[in-house]
Amino acid sequence: MKFISFVWEGKEQYGAVYDEEKILNLSVLGAGFPDSLLNGIRMGEAFTTLVEQTLEKPEADLGNAFVPLNGIRYLAPIPHPVRNIMCVGKNYREHAIEMGSAADIPEHVIVFTKATTTVNAHEAPVDSYSGITQELDYEGELAVVIGKKGRRIAKEDALSHVFGYTVLNDITARDFQRMHKQYFIGKSLDGSCPIGPWIVHRSEIENPNALRIETKVNGKVRQQSNTSRFIFPVEEIISELSKGMTLEPGDIVATGTPAGVGNGFKPPRFLKPGDKIEITVEKVGTLRNVIK
Amino acid sequence: MKFISFVWEGKEQYGAVYDEEKILNLSVLGAGFPDSLLNGIRMGEAFTTLVEQTLEKPEADLGNAFVPLNGIRYLAPIPHPVRNIMCVGKNYREHAIEMGSAADIPEHVIVFTKATTTVNAHEAPVDSYSGITQELDYEGELAVVIGKKGRRIAKEDALSHVFGYTVLNDITARDFQRMHKQYFIGKSLDGSCPIGPWIVHRSEIENPNALRIETKVNGKVRQQSNTSRFIFPVEEIISELSKGMTLEPGDIVATGTPAGVGNGFKPPRFLKPGDKIEITVEKVGTLRNVIK
Repeated sequence: MKFISFVWEGKEQYGAVYDEEKILNLSVLGAGFPDSLLNGIRMGEAFTTLVEQTLEKPEADLGNAFVPLNGIRYLAPIPHPVRNIMCVGKNYREHAIEMGSAADIPEHVIVFTKATTTVNAHEAPVDSYSGITQELDYEGELAVVIGKKGRRIAKEDALSHVFGYTVLNDITARDFQRMHKQYFIGKSLDGSCPIGPWIVHRSEIENPNALRIETKVNGKVRQQSNTSRFIFPVEEIISELSKGMTLEPGDIVATGTPAGVGNGFKPPRFLKPGDKIEITVEKVGTLRNVIK
Repeated sequence: MKFISFVWEGKEQYGAVYDEEKILNLSVLGAGFPDSLLNGIRMGEAFTTLVEQTLEKPEADLGNAFVPLNGIRYLAPIPHPVRNIMCVGKNYREHAIEMGSAADIPEHVIVFTKATTTVNAHEAPVDSYSGITQELDYEGELAVVIGKKGRRIAKEDALSHVFGYTVLNDITARDFQRMHKQYFIGKSLDGSCPIGPWIVHRSEIENPNALRIETKVNGKVRQQSNTSRFIFPVEEIISELSKGMTLEPGDIVATGTPAGVGNGFKPPRFLKPGDKIEITVEKVGTLRNVIK
């Protein structure tokens, strides 16, 4: 199951990707279906079971509930998260080194947040902020969406707390990141967190720590790695984050970016208006945005 | 005007402090009044005008809408913020030095966040987390509540974007803060952000950068300073935060803590079960919590 949020006929709606051409619009099915994907995630297993059963019905029975994939405007799968996006820093050795030196390889998971106002959609433009930063950079990442509330989650139980997986671009103003020391300001430009195009349910991804990940800028590969190279695998991130903090359904956790960010090149290759960024995570999808 | 959220007769309600003994319960006044203080703040000037006019009515006309201050359970003024609490780090020179050395005095504002699950109330217990941290510490702070949406807010306009002021205790696990480098994890223990007891409307505080601030632990003064010693005054914090990020009504921004945190003593004086912390900000109020 792939869960998607979108604008159709001027309204925010959500659905399940039915095939390569269409979405089953869950917003119009009525009885039992919540009013947003976030509220569906909060319903827990009852929601995924309901969607599964509905997807098994004969196509003819689903009548007018189909929407063409090429007719929608994408939204982030959770367009209005109720707290900041959590992001792991330096979770691939080569990226830690390109941002500094081997001394920057972390011994403990590093987490910062991006403001909710950064949330942006697949295929939506991203501002270049050329008036305020000269060092706008991309970071292709696998992101985890939490499905089940928990604190002190053991590593062995961690994946059962996941609702699904999506792709995230942690766009960063490197000059702000450096200048302000704690990353929040440099990571929180409005619209600097494209997420999508959908959430793939965890039942389709047996091991999130074994997925190819690739970022292209203007068609050329910049980042190419595999989540098997995580310093802290998904289970450990969830366990560490929840040791004193309750994780909640709908929480979004970005797992860190591999080597190959613009800042890592000599000279650096920062983003400029017109640049097209495509991030592909195996079994999840491709997130595409253009800098405007 | 002092705005307060509380539990009365088992329900979350909000009101305006009427005198030393009672609250005018705005939740029961009906027509025109929103269902929460956050939604009131989102209404803008119309809300404060409505409350002002209501407070001017003869006491007898307000009938059953009074609630005794000593009968409520306090809530954080905004019990359910819709994004993380933003916090300024090292905004007093002496505190930057006690946490490291003069090299730690920042040249640019440092901002990190606390998860929404940290939000706690005046007079509510705070967990000691003795099973996971040996270095729980207090940080008494003035906090700003944003009233008006804005991006690229000029310093001259910054105070007009403020709804009001409250007191905040940025409780921190110092060992986690050090170990995880970015502060988010060490600052995000559940319940580690008592806020309150109320929000004082900005009309009552001409200059937020000239307020005495004091923290006592078990009746003994630990922090004693004045917001006039801010490295970055409130106007500059708002201006810097909003340079690329939209600030929204209900956003909470803690302005940093003065010298005298437990970590600054030799040997350090961390919090333990039974410790009572009282933080007083001039013209705002006293926030009191006990470690359990």
